Amino acid sequence: MVVLPELLAANETYAASFTKGDLPMPPGRQVAILTCMDARIDPARALGLEEGDAHVIRNAGGLAAEAIRSLAISQELLGTREIVVIHHTDCGMLTFTDDQIRQRLSESLGPDAAAAAAGITFQPFSDVARSVHDDLETIHSSPLIRPGTPVTGFVYDVRTGRMSPVE
Amino acid sequence: MVVLPELLAANETYAASFTKGDLPMPPGRQVAILTCMDARIDPARALGLEEGDAHVIRNAGGLAAEAIRSLAISQELLGTREIVVIHHTDCGMLTFTDDQIRQRLSESLGPDAAAAAAGITFQPFSDVARSVHDDLETIHSSPLIRPGTPVTGFVYDVRTGRMSPVE
Repeated sequence: MVVLPELLAANETYAASFTKGDLPMPPGRQVAILTCMDARIDPARALGLEEGDAHVIRNAGGLAAEAIRSLAISQELLGTREIVVIHHTDCGMLTFTDDQIRQRLSESLGPDAAAAAAGITFQPFSDVARSVHDDLETIHSSPLIRPGTPVTGFVYDVRTGRMSPVE
Repeated sequence: MVVLPELLAANETYAASFTKGDLPMPPGRQVAILTCMDARIDPARALGLEEGDAHVIRNAGGLAAEAIRSLAISQELLGTREIVVIHHTDCGMLTFTDDQIRQRLSESLGPDAAAAAAGITFQPFSDVARSVHDDLETIHSSPLIRPGTPVTGFVYDVRTGRMSPVE
């Protein structure tokens, strides 16, 4: 089963009625969103974003440590001045430990994977609100982020579609 | 100017008519999309994705080296079996060198930023199709990615909304 032909057909439909070909490179609303790759989250729909509005950075967990490069580029080269961090309920990152995923990768993919996995921290966490809090700290304490940047954190509830603030 | 109140108001509207609260954690279409954080790209609209369909990983450039952790979690724990890499025309990553952004960060943010930036490669590139090609190689050669995974690469044209394949 390969999904790609369906994605390309959808893209043809999208392109056929595309009217946003003149947007500038810098995000119009000067904001960067950092969130999880989770399939249930659609940042554009959930936050009312149109094409051209915002940088959207996504990784497993929505983790800041892996996003500093992108955030620095976003701010320094493309003028964003606000950061919103959104983790979410029922996150996959709550379901394993580094030891467990290393063991699984070793069993699934063999010794080369085991060796590679031993050199990575997969950055699981056990409390979503705490992980948001930690990421706000990571961002605020990075010398590559502009001092005074408004950085706010939220937990998105995948059952309700609603974001709740994290202090 | 803080955009957050507008995002939260949009989220209230989204949540008020939210009907997708029972989706499972694993992506229904078993695909992971890797693309750039660029504001002009809306992967869901451009590819016909609904909530629950696909993991979406985004960073500055849509670069694979920074996405291996997420892709390994996506495959091993959440069952995705296909990867689509999408870089794009007029990418910010085409507009600078590592030396240039390090200089800018040093001038904007001072010596602590200069020291931090010296330890990072910001991973700019000079040819979008080539960067896609390189990322396909990075993914195929990673021991943490399942052998035989279909991995395809595209350049998205921000003027037309259309994806073109990269061999």
